[in-house]
Amino acid sequence: MQIRVINPNTTASMTAKIGEAARRVAAPGTIITATNPTSGPVSIESHFDEAISALGVTEEIRKGEREAADGYIIACFGDPGLLAARELTARPVVGIAEAAFHLATMISTRFSVVTTLGRTCIIAEHLLQSYGFAHHCRRVRAAEIPVLDLEDDGACAVSRIIDECRRARDEDGIGAIVLGCGGMADLTEEIGQAVGLPIVEGVTAAVKLVEALASLKLGTSKHGDLAFPRAKRFTGQFEYLSA
Amino acid sequence: MQIRVINPNTTASMTAKIGEAARRVAAPGTIITATNPTSGPVSIESHFDEAISALGVTEEIRKGEREAADGYIIACFGDPGLLAARELTARPVVGIAEAAFHLATMISTRFSVVTTLGRTCIIAEHLLQSYGFAHHCRRVRAAEIPVLDLEDDGACAVSRIIDECRRARDEDGIGAIVLGCGGMADLTEEIGQAVGLPIVEGVTAAVKLVEALASLKLGTSKHGDLAFPRAKRFTGQFEYLSA
Amino acid sequence: MQIRVINPNTTASMTAKIGEAARRVAAPGTIITATNPTSGPVSIESHFDEAISALGVTEEIRKGEREAADGYIIACFGDPGLLAARELTARPVVGIAEAAFHLATMISTRFSVVTTLGRTCIIAEHLLQSYGFAHHCRRVRAAEIPVLDLEDDGACAVSRIIDECRRARDEDGIGAIVLGCGGMADLTEEIGQAVGLPIVEGVTAAVKLVEALASLKLGTSKHGDLAFPRAKRFTGQFEYLSA
Amino acid sequence: MQIRVINPNTTASMTAKIGEAARRVAAPGTIITATNPTSGPVSIESHFDEAISALGVTEEIRKGEREAADGYIIACFGDPGLLAARELTARPVVGIAEAAFHLATMISTRFSVVTTLGRTCIIAEHLLQSYGFAHHCRRVRAAEIPVLDLEDDGACAVSRIIDECRRARDEDGIGAIVLGCGGMADLTEEIGQAVGLPIVEGVTAAVKLVEALASLKLGTSKHGDLAFPRAKRFTGQFEYLSA
Amino acid sequence: MQIRVINPNTTASMTAKIGEAARRVAAPGTIITATNPTSGPVSIESHFDEAISALGVTEEIRKGEREAADGYIIACFGDPGLLAARELTARPVVGIAEAAFHLATMISTRFSVVTTLGRTCIIAEHLLQSYGFAHHCRRVRAAEIPVLDLEDDGACAVSRIIDECRRARDEDGIGAIVLGCGGMADLTEEIGQAVGLPIVEGVTAAVKLVEALASLKLGTSKHGDLAFPRAKRFTGQFEYLSA
Amino acid sequence: MQIRVINPNTTASMTAKIGEAARRVAAPGTIITATNPTSGPVSIESHFDEAISALGVTEEIRKGEREAADGYIIACFGDPGLLAARELTARPVVGIAEAAFHLATMISTRFSVVTTLGRTCIIAEHLLQSYGFAHHCRRVRAAEIPVLDLEDDGACAVSRIIDECRRARDEDGIGAIVLGCGGMADLTEEIGQAVGLPIVEGVTAAVKLVEALASLKLGTSKHGDLAFPRAKRFTGQFEYLSA
Repeated sequence: MQIRVINPNTTASMTAKIGEAARRVAAPGTIITATNPTSGPVSIESHFDEAISALGVTEEIRKGEREAADGYIIACFGDPGLLAARELTARPVVGIAEAAFHLATMISTRFSVVTTLGRTCIIAEHLLQSYGFAHHCRRVRAAEIPVLDLEDDGACAVSRIIDECRRARDEDGIGAIVLGCGGMADLTEEIGQAVGLPIVEGVTAAVKLVEALASLKLGTSKHGDLAFPRAKRFTGQFEYLSA
Repeated sequence: MQIRVINPNTTASMTAKIGEAARRVAAPGTIITATNPTSGPVSIESHFDEAISALGVTEEIRKGEREAADGYIIACFGDPGLLAARELTARPVVGIAEAAFHLATMISTRFSVVTTLGRTCIIAEHLLQSYGFAHHCRRVRAAEIPVLDLEDDGACAVSRIIDECRRARDEDGIGAIVLGCGGMADLTEEIGQAVGLPIVEGVTAAVKLVEALASLKLGTSKHGDLAFPRAKRFTGQFEYLSA
Repeated sequence: MQIRVINPNTTASMTAKIGEAARRVAAPGTIITATNPTSGPVSIESHFDEAISALGVTEEIRKGEREAADGYIIACFGDPGLLAARELTARPVVGIAEAAFHLATMISTRFSVVTTLGRTCIIAEHLLQSYGFAHHCRRVRAAEIPVLDLEDDGACAVSRIIDECRRARDEDGIGAIVLGCGGMADLTEEIGQAVGLPIVEGVTAAVKLVEALASLKLGTSKHGDLAFPRAKRFTGQFEYLSA
Repeated sequence: MQIRVINPNTTASMTAKIGEAARRVAAPGTIITATNPTSGPVSIESHFDEAISALGVTEEIRKGEREAADGYIIACFGDPGLLAARELTARPVVGIAEAAFHLATMISTRFSVVTTLGRTCIIAEHLLQSYGFAHHCRRVRAAEIPVLDLEDDGACAVSRIIDECRRARDEDGIGAIVLGCGGMADLTEEIGQAVGLPIVEGVTAAVKLVEALASLKLGTSKHGDLAFPRAKRFTGQFEYLSA
Repeated sequence: MQIRVINPNTTASMTAKIGEAARRVAAPGTIITATNPTSGPVSIESHFDEAISALGVTEEIRKGEREAADGYIIACFGDPGLLAARELTARPVVGIAEAAFHLATMISTRFSVVTTLGRTCIIAEHLLQSYGFAHHCRRVRAAEIPVLDLEDDGACAVSRIIDECRRARDEDGIGAIVLGCGGMADLTEEIGQAVGLPIVEGVTAAVKLVEALASLKLGTSKHGDLAFPRAKRFTGQFEYLSA
Repeated sequence: MQIRVINPNTTASMTAKIGEAARRVAAPGTIITATNPTSGPVSIESHFDEAISALGVTEEIRKGEREAADGYIIACFGDPGLLAARELTARPVVGIAEAAFHLATMISTRFSVVTTLGRTCIIAEHLLQSYGFAHHCRRVRAAEIPVLDLEDDGACAVSRIIDECRRARDEDGIGAIVLGCGGMADLTEEIGQAVGLPIVEGVTAAVKLVEALASLKLGTSKHGDLAFPRAKRFTGQFEYLSA
């Protein structure tokens, strides 16, 4: 089985890191193809960054379809372009935010999220509401670190995340913590050891969920509102999408 | 005051129609600039079409900022790119779906939506949930007409919409109907007369709401999560967005 | 267009202030008639005050109908008598709480309310729930000042409101603040400058919303549950309402 | 114990009927004082009727306080003036709609409401939402009979109610039915026998709940937002309320 | 009328105390039979304890049916086995958590819960959500005392509960407090005097609610999903349940 | 990895069938141990059956702990005893209802449930509410077949389920169907082919989710409310649980 892990931002080092994390948990026989769009923001920290990156996500899905991918992961915690991506394929597509939320509810009754910048908390809150997990999440917290600091070993990103996770553990009345950024995919173990409660990380969670769906032959439903988009004309730079 | 009415699809005749409808209700002194992206889908009938069109919406906001627009309307019923657009400007930005929902709740206790294709109902349902109006809307109905049939006088689009509105009136226990497509902007009066209860149309609603916000000097908050996006590098075709 | 701004309490100075605030934002051609019932509480700070004032509100609507008003505003933050008022007219009727909530959601993703006395917070909370904005409001805060202190220049009302608004700004993770009392209608600018984020005030918001509805010919729906009340007999002091 | 059962409308025959129903279920030692305002609508079938009747309700509470009532019932299914009434007394006050809803959830997992006119369904829906029972009620149904037809033996009111109750039983997937009008207080047994599932009637439910609260010495909390209203001046016809 | 008060744990002293509390508020003519299963946990402080105790609850209901009980109370704050119990009888069955929540909403607009151990807060939160009272409860607080400390006069349980109740009063913006453990049934008055706002205790609340339902001849609906369980075979130690 | 699949009822043929279905989808290296309690109901079709079966579920978890199981599945659609089971182990525990709901939301925006008897629909509705999926499920439908008819080849169970699934497909506006009974685990493919949209079955879904959690080393959180139960005394037949 080939899973295409799409890092929606264009920072290759993060893509590599995410691919590594995915491979570490992939089942024997699962091939992880980590990829990112060539065009887009180097990090995703706003609704605008999300909107731009959604284009890249759909491009990567289209590439994946040509390359016979068996499933897809959108490896940014805002799950940008998730429903659009689903329309483009009959294969399973899983976002890392939803993946982490789903698994967190199976091992705890309440969890908190620790993400990067405060301004992105609203993105997680909107997703929690939309996915139905608003009551299961006690609080969305920000360590106030820019995403790319996670690529910079000199930055104190990890220690700030651990500090925030400890506050979540001590103040929020929770059983688990969800890490709110794809760029934290390599930190799960370190954070878990420092914090002492289960840490749910989205990239790894999504790998297992796509494997689960694919092995059950459960692909995106093509009945109803996630059916392939109607063929139509696109103009300008998107003319190539016309059918 | 200059309001930039952005038709997120690229069908010029629809843009013109929407501009016309906007001008009919604009206050004296309001200049309506109706525009659409040069690149994108000719109609928006899926999550994918929405994702592509969101790019065009943000482009049009950026153009509007250079041309000193005083406010913006996103004239597609899915409000594509709304939060991204808001980040790009300190001016008010209003989507036509939210505009119609807001006004509908002020003249009725319960309303229904009549939109184009069944597959787009989920988009309206998601918005209703996110905006807080899930309980105020009895039902989202589709007349099962493609968007571009609204541009085709020969098509029986209007009569099908009227039929569906009448069913809503007779079966749903409502006081008003929201029209669920920017392409219906010129039909409000005809439908209203045929159906006999208030018809709330989003383009016209949004014009008045942007005028309202602008005259109160209420622009998009730049405090918190709708602040301008952090300057960062974009790659590839989006390099021009780098700062 | 004539808009009847009904101050539900009977303090003439507050009515005048509210009228002033309304006129400052009214469109050319809009005539603001600020009025208050002759009978009722001098301020509204409880459910009981609200119930009594609702009578005055309906009286003022009835007067407005005889005087051919084109729309109505209920200028008390509890929106007392709102649905009753709507039944009495085919014109638009907007409460200042709902007006402020609606506009606040268009310029921010989350807002807080700053009102007068703590005991009235529950009124705002009930309205937020009923209108669908419970998730958009982070917190309803009270500056703990009686309403009529807003009429007393010597009182430190303004500085206490500003202090509470600053706490909201710093602690609540919001983009905008809603002022929770019609008596604050003249303070918007001063508070806004002191606090540094958008301040949404209900009287002014409601003026623009009534103008919006009226110019779109959207009056209160007379189809369904906001239809004119059935003619019936009233007894005692209300016999004059019999039909 | 003296319970003051307040019929918010001014139809004496209905007051008598409600008093009768209350007395039939009252505990030994409970004295039922059935009363109605002298001024107000003869029936309550709209938000406007409710607003007017709320004044009468508060008047009756004030009388009750002078006459040392031990508890109060608001015997109209919209619970008009409920929170205002609670502010005026440290005794328990129970509305018949809430009373019926509460008890219905204790004997069934889902119930439906059968009320009088379709236009009043929204009142019950609003209450269900506010009280927290929106998910427990499958449907609010109207038999489409005016309230005063319940006073007219010749009218076919009862058979229409029974018909609607049977439809609720057969279509709604419920375990109990709530009767949605104080004027149905004498019909519980007849309807129950005809329909064959538990019928919860609000007047009788409220009697037992007030008795329950009073015997537990649980009166309306005077801590917080239901404290007695602040003393203040009232003007005009309400000057007598000044303190 | 005979009410069977079932203490789901097996600590006889607590059963006696609960029975006492029930008798103090029972109406003349109400016979309280306080009982507990012979098998089960001595206290209930986890989901597991609840699951085991639910068996005992159903056993006690079955005994009650043979002994012609007129109603049942499940006297543990998690309401263990409530719906199962209801299936087994056409008599009313009331849990003490639901009883307290219902009455608390009738005397206050917002309440808090003070329970024993922090780990049981989630049980109350789940019930509040399921019963519809999530918005009426500001906070579920734990005094962090094991249940059986309530049986130990030397323990400082009462003072810790009072401390937590005072914090609730001062910080939560509430009008009433719900005591979150059947073992607190004898402390209501002491706590109430120390805290100064209404204290709603579940055992006493449930007695009055069962009396209320029974006197209205409202038993558990046997129409629909609370009908008696279908006759079937049980195996092993439960073979005696076969029919 | 050893997964203990617990059929909470005591029908061995169903346990075998469930084990078969689990094995068909298990990963290489996953050992499925299908088991059922020796004591309990032969089918689970009521809250009472659920309560009894929860005991057996906890017994099976305790056995599994002694036998070093790596994860657990509760293979009855009501997820009986789920939270109790989670307290007893640090391994993952997944219920088949939650498993199916989670996966269904990843391949469709809206789904319906098709279960056995109408009286059990409420169980699924309660779970949907509690898990956060109430808005994602359009409707819970019953084919009105007793559970054990699924064990009887002569019964027309399958064709009735298919009929109900087709109605769901045609009437509910959904993209997927969740099968609402562990006893349907062998029917997924047949139903899927007959109905033509994705069928999510809980036993198979749960196998993949437990594998996913276990391979991520995500076990039930022992921090907070799912920690192992406090050691305490149990009496009577449960004395063996004392610690």
